Amino acid sequence: MFYKVKLYKAKSKTEGLIFMKIRIGIFGYGNLGRGIENAIRQNPDMELVAVFTRRDPATLKIGTPDVTVASANDVADYKDKIDVMILCGGSATDLPVQTPELAKMFTVVDSFDTHAKIPEHFANVDAAAKEGGKVAMISVGWDPGMFSVNRLYAGAVLPEGEDYTFWGKGVSQGHSDAIRRIDGVLDAKQYTIPVESALDAVRSGSAPVLSTREKHTRECFVVAEEGADKARIEKEIKEMPNYFADYDTTVHFITMEELKRDHSGIPHGGFVIRTGKTGANREHNHVIEYNLKLDSNPEFTASVIVAFARAAHRLTAKGETGCKTVFDIPPALLSAKSPEELRKTLL
Amino acid sequence: MFYKVKLYKAKSKTEGLIFMKIRIGIFGYGNLGRGIENAIRQNPDMELVAVFTRRDPATLKIGTPDVTVASANDVADYKDKIDVMILCGGSATDLPVQTPELAKMFTVVDSFDTHAKIPEHFANVDAAAKEGGKVAMISVGWDPGMFSVNRLYAGAVLPEGEDYTFWGKGVSQGHSDAIRRIDGVLDAKQYTIPVESALDAVRSGSAPVLSTREKHTRECFVVAEEGADKARIEKEIKEMPNYFADYDTTVHFITMEELKRDHSGIPHGGFVIRTGKTGANREHNHVIEYNLKLDSNPEFTASVIVAFARAAHRLTAKGETGCKTVFDIPPALLSAKSPEELRKTLL
Repeated sequence: MFYKVKLYKAKSKTEGLIFMKIRIGIFGYGNLGRGIENAIRQNPDMELVAVFTRRDPATLKIGTPDVTVASANDVADYKDKIDVMILCGGSATDLPVQTPELAKMFTVVDSFDTHAKIPEHFANVDAAAKEGGKVAMISVGWDPGMFSVNRLYAGAVLPEGEDYTFWGKGVSQGHSDAIRRIDGVLDAKQYTIPVESALDAVRSGSAPVLSTREKHTRECFVVAEEGADKARIEKEIKEMPNYFADYDTTVHFITMEELKRDHSGIPHGGFVIRTGKTGANREHNHVIEYNLKLDSNPEFTASVIVAFARAAHRLTAKGETGCKTVFDIPPALLSAKSPEELRKTLL
Repeated sequence: MFYKVKLYKAKSKTEGLIFMKIRIGIFGYGNLGRGIENAIRQNPDMELVAVFTRRDPATLKIGTPDVTVASANDVADYKDKIDVMILCGGSATDLPVQTPELAKMFTVVDSFDTHAKIPEHFANVDAAAKEGGKVAMISVGWDPGMFSVNRLYAGAVLPEGEDYTFWGKGVSQGHSDAIRRIDGVLDAKQYTIPVESALDAVRSGSAPVLSTREKHTRECFVVAEEGADKARIEKEIKEMPNYFADYDTTVHFITMEELKRDHSGIPHGGFVIRTGKTGANREHNHVIEYNLKLDSNPEFTASVIVAFARAAHRLTAKGETGCKTVFDIPPALLSAKSPEELRKTLL
């Protein structure tokens, strides 16, 4: 149910004020969309208004009662009913089209993560968001996202130094998919694992130059078809260019039951470390480290997105327009707390 | 040597443009002031214009040749010659007076770190900075500063969770001073040390409730006068209220030579950790950790301040006024790199 409310500034302290929640729409309902739905429930200043799907809305059951499930085709009807539309599609084909399209109508946030194409995506979304007169945020999550912010802070603070990013231990969807495409493979899960000794070398401040192989290993759990040539599958995995050839890779063949029982989670995480020198003769070493250990990659990504959705809404409300990234957002805008409370409790 | 330059916006791409460095002044020349001086040399878009001292300027030798050393009394003469004045005095008596005073004339940055008095300091500096028509930044460094920013980000991303801050291993100046005031003590150095098992418990996601004693230990290296009653000194240290009584404290008596040889550095660091839950049934744990390992506390603090001085200068140039903290600064403003370059290389 929607009510039309005329907003105006309070003329005196005795005048009545209403508190309006930030009205969120979710565009696309996979793992990330479900994560957004759960995250909204943890933020009392937000409410989920509608979930948009390209499937038949009647067939989609979502986790929140009494929330509209609508067809993606009808999204324009919600122009005045949603404050921030969160896009939960993929970076390969969905977001390059959807984000500019929806940015003309809504304040939007996406998690576009094809690093090499960010400048192009930024330009497209910026033009659309300016046309729409709203703010659009792209590439929000943890990498790109929180890892990027930490690379920026650390680099600004220690201009003479080295950056390192390690990922894992965690499930790489892309690498798991690559294994599944091999003939004779029924299912597979791939873990990216940072090499502990490489992490230690970085933390020592010795600024090591590390090859791809020295930074991460890859561990694969594979369910093969009955009678499949496991030696051939293992060889195909280990020699796959780009995905595995440059890494030390371990392959375990397990049963479907074992895969479901022990490898159904989507954990991830990683480390952003910068080491740098200060002093009259650069005689002092410093190590800045940010690390994440996540039980659920999509739910954590969703939690980051929801915080930045709050910031995007506030910027649009202030009259700003155009594309923004995590680099452009004053941290205070992410929090539901007032600036006074933040200074008093967190500074 | 100063040149008067009339600035105006370029009318076409063929018009000449000049690059102007950010002109920095240092107000107070102790460990932090020297750190600022060194940090400026690591940032090619900045230059040190003058150091201000309450001592006789003729007696102060600074590390950078050809830079003016001026009396603190003459600071008003530099109103148009300095873009950002960095205040390097103490939080107890210097900054509460100096920051509001100088904020009327300059864009300023300080490292005010008396947590309980931040709201009062903010209000005083805000009024002064608005009167001066410039931006003033307070409480910049690592705690308050980078630690605060990380507490804010982590709390916004994981609203249901617990915050933990650990300090060390590092030298606490206040605790070292407290030992030096004991009768029979010639000199002393105190290290604050986080308890490894407490860190591990926090990282496990078990959200432990930790007492003061469980989080940190204190280790003291003391040079006693010849013939002093060491047992009495050790007892006085260990029973000192607020400083040591609530901690497991170790006291080592060493010689002045050993103190100078092994304990002349000012290392510090610490950990900001937030653990929180997500999911439909809060079934997933997440750990966000930020940690610092610093060879020189004042030099790292100075490096943070210099990055935020760049941001303060940019905000004043944009016409903003009033008091800001690290919470109010979009990260991109800290970097000498352009927004395009940041998106391309760090996002």
